Parts: sequence; structure tokens; C-alpha cells
Amino acid sequence: MGVQVVDIDDPDDPRVNDFRDLNSVDRRPDLPALPGGRPGKGLVIAEGVLVVERMVASRFATHALFGVEKRRVELGTTLDDPSLAGVPYFRASAEVMAEVIGFHLNRGVLAVSRRPPVCTVAQAVAGATSVAVLEGVNDHENIGSIFRNAAGLGVDAVLFGAGCADPLYRRCVRVSMGHALLVPFARCDDWPGEIGWLREQGFTTIALTPAPDAVPLAGVAGSAKVAFLVGAEGPGLTRAAMRNCDVRTQIPMARGTDSLNVATAAAVAFYERARARM
Amino acid sequence: MGVQVVDIDDPDDPRVNDFRDLNSVDRRPDLPALPGGRPGKGLVIAEGVLVVERMVASRFATHALFGVEKRRVELGTTLDDPSLAGVPYFRASAEVMAEVIGFHLNRGVLAVSRRPPVCTVAQAVAGATSVAVLEGVNDHENIGSIFRNAAGLGVDAVLFGAGCADPLYRRCVRVSMGHALLVPFARCDDWPGEIGWLREQGFTTIALTPAPDAVPLAGVAGSAKVAFLVGAEGPGLTRAAMRNCDVRTQIPMARGTDSLNVATAAAVAFYERARARM
Repeated sequence: MGVQVVDIDDPDDPRVNDFRDLNSVDRRPDLPALPGGRPGKGLVIAEGVLVVERMVASRFATHALFGVEKRRVELGTTLDDPSLAGVPYFRASAEVMAEVIGFHLNRGVLAVSRRPPVCTVAQAVAGATSVAVLEGVNDHENIGSIFRNAAGLGVDAVLFGAGCADPLYRRCVRVSMGHALLVPFARCDDWPGEIGWLREQGFTTIALTPAPDAVPLAGVAGSAKVAFLVGAEGPGLTRAAMRNCDVRTQIPMARGTDSLNVATAAAVAFYERARARM
Repeated sequence: MGVQVVDIDDPDDPRVNDFRDLNSVDRRPDLPALPGGRPGKGLVIAEGVLVVERMVASRFATHALFGVEKRRVELGTTLDDPSLAGVPYFRASAEVMAEVIGFHLNRGVLAVSRRPPVCTVAQAVAGATSVAVLEGVNDHENIGSIFRNAAGLGVDAVLFGAGCADPLYRRCVRVSMGHALLVPFARCDDWPGEIGWLREQGFTTIALTPAPDAVPLAGVAGSAKVAFLVGAEGPGLTRAAMRNCDVRTQIPMARGTDSLNVATAAAVAFYERARARM
């Protein structure tokens, strides 16, 4: 059971094409496969032992791994997971790996899956009592950090309003420590209509803003169901989004557009939520 | 008054040597100038309009700027600051700048100062009621984020215990949004002795740890004077540091070594402090 080890000695071996040119602007395999659009393969890449373990544990179906022997040993029984039965572990030297992927990868192991069918908003928030809703967050590192903070602080789902970057981009998955693969998420196609929909479902919708007339965060996060809305650093949430929220809240002290990174501001809100439910 | 504009057309012009090879492993000018050691110049580099403005406002004495005309215009009256009287603004094209510094700089302007005399721990915490104390935090981005979060959430000073990276490294200053130049900081030379010293000064010393027997963060941050101790992701605080603290506290939900980034965990503690003082 588990993976099948396949040795790769030739960097041109087509069997590792899903891992090729990871940093290429045009050909990188983790771009979405758009009809008639960019030549992305629509793949999802996990890097490093911990994130690979999380991909194996997720709804993402790993169809190949590519790594050095040392990382194979470190992955241990993870590679015996039934979901990996017959899946190839392409084993190579660090040098061959570097030639294939286009740079030296310290983490020493990659796994790849196809993108699963997208969730609807209703599917992503089913059963959720704490939700993060992003608007205009177009930085992959920030989105990755928000997934990590959501997982660490008990937020159940992440929704993407207008103007957000791809949560399955390689860097996002890496920075999230793999939680982008585990925390349910969905894109909003009717933005900002989904805010009203969340309210209909009983969520208190709370906009984070540095506006001086916003109420302090302490005390607003105790409802049965809460959705925190955060916008990009600088512009913040759009008026349209803000107008649709029940509450506008601010983090004390943190005034000014650059005072806190968006993922940090979100973490503070998530913490306040966890605190309110203790 | 204010800066003197000096045009630089030749990338080899020695007048911009303080900005040369910023990414060079050996020669980068922002390495500390150690006696008999590495050939660093002991300079501090500010990048971008906002961080340059903060350097000008700080105790760091800017002795030269290097940038494109557009950024000079954006800096506006900042360049009229009396502290900049007679200081050169080396004006160049983006291409000449890229040749000098070794890469293309989107931010388009740099300022440089010498490292000021180091603060003692007593100087850094004079008048402080909220202090962050780091141990083993050797990642420049994390240190930069901690400075930003300290400034954003009202923490007065940052102390560096054993094993921390240089807070005046260029990337740290950049990620801090310039707050590494504004928030007082000092290195601890008698670590972990400074923890006892802080207690003698009336600080409640609070260790952040994921240990399950630690008390929840809510409720521990309300003393008149508080010092939060944070360790590196993974190993966390050393036993020696932990033993010297008054309280061991944990962030609810955030269990496990990778659940929150160290700067994010610190931000949550800083927020709890701001909240307790509201």
C-alpha cells in the first residue's frame, strides 16, 4: 500500500512535468487552467513535510510527490495513507530537483493535486459559527497568513469577495502552512450580495476599519455566529461592503492605514472571537 | 535649508558607495561594523517614502538619500527638515539606481544613517509600561513585524534576549515600516538576568507558550507594567527564560508549535494589553 517510489535521474523526464518551472511566469503549473486563457495546469503544490502531510489529510487528492530520499523517510507513515495507494513518489537528488523546478528547494519535497471542484459559499460556511470575509486582499502571503491564523484561532471558513488573489497559489499554500487546503473557502460571485446572505443566515457581519467612529472590537464578537470583514491594507473595505455590515469595529491603538498588517488585524479579530467564546 | 540635490549619472560614482551592493552577502553596507570582523559599514538603510520619512523623524541621523526625482517630489516638505540641512539627495534614474544597489527597487528612494550609540536596557524601558522581550527570534521579517505591531498596538519598547537577529538589518527596517527606527530597543547582555531586573522594576513578566497548563491570556495583561516574553516558532522560550517569568500564558485555540507566527502571537498579546488598559 501507499506510494510507489520511482527514481528520477534525468531532469528532462516528462513524468515530473507537473513540478516543472514552478517560478515561470507563463508556465507555472499552479496557475488556474482558464478556458482559452493562460496555460496554467490548475494544479495545487504543497511544499515541505508539514504541508505535504496536510495535503494528504485534506480533500485535495495528491496524485504525485517529488522529493529527496531524506524527506521520504521523514514523511514516514504519511506515505502509507490509503489515499496515496499507487501514487508515485518521484525520488531524485536535490540537484535534479532544482533543475526540474527551477530553483533550489530547501524543503526537499513537493506534492501535487488537481484543483478540486469549487465550493459554493453555502457549502463553505455550512456549520460555521466564525467566518472571515476578505475584500481586495490581493497579496498571496497575506491570504496564506489569514488561513494560518484562521486555523490557529478557530475560524471555520474563509470567503473571498471581489479583488482577492488566488488562495491556491503556491506561495499562499506555503505561507498558510497548508491550512489553505484544510479550512473551507469559497469565492463570492455576487459581491457584496453575500454579506446580506450571511446576515440572513444569522451571522453578525463585522467590518474591521480604522475609522475613528467605529466601536471597539472588545464586546462585538460574542454573537452565536460572526463574520469578520477585512479589506486590503491602504484602501480598506469598500463603502459598498461596509454599508452592508451590521457593525463597524476598530482595534484599539491601531489607527492609520499602515499600523497593522491585514493578516495581523484579522488575527486580532479572530482572537477576540476565541476570547468571547471561552 | 533642507537637502542638496546632487545628480548621479555614473553608477560607479563613489559618492553613492553607502548604497552599493545592498544584497551582497559580504559587502552589504547594513551589516554591523565589527572590530576585526565582517566588512560591514554599520549603516542603516531606509527604503521607500514612508520609511524614509520615519528615519528623518527618528533619532537616526540621515546623512544621505538616493532616489529618483518622482520620490523626491513625493517626500515634499520632509526634505526641508532641519536635520537634513546640507544632506545630499543623490538623484538618479531608476536604471542607475538599480546598477548601484544591485537590483531594481520599486520603492525608488533610500536614506542612510550611521548606527546611533546603542541603548542600554534601562534607557530603552525608561518610562515604558508595556515591553516586548524576544528570545531566539532570528528571522528579520518577524522582528520587523514585531516592531510594527508594537508601534500599532502601543507597546513602548522591545528588548532582545539571546539568539535574536539584528533589528537594524535592511529587511527588518522595511518590514517594520520604519518602526524599528522609532520604537526604543536594546540588547540584553546578561540574559536571562534582565528578566529579574524587569521584575525589580515592577514589571509583571509574562511568558507566551503553547504549554497546556499555561493560563489564558485574557486577564493577565492588566498590571501597571507588563513585559511579554516570546520565543522563536518551534523551540519557543528556553526553560531558563520561562523559569524567571511571573506568569506563563497561552493564546486560546492557538496550540501547537506552528499554529501562529511569532509576530502574530506577539500582536495578540499586545492587543490584550491595549484591551486591558481601555
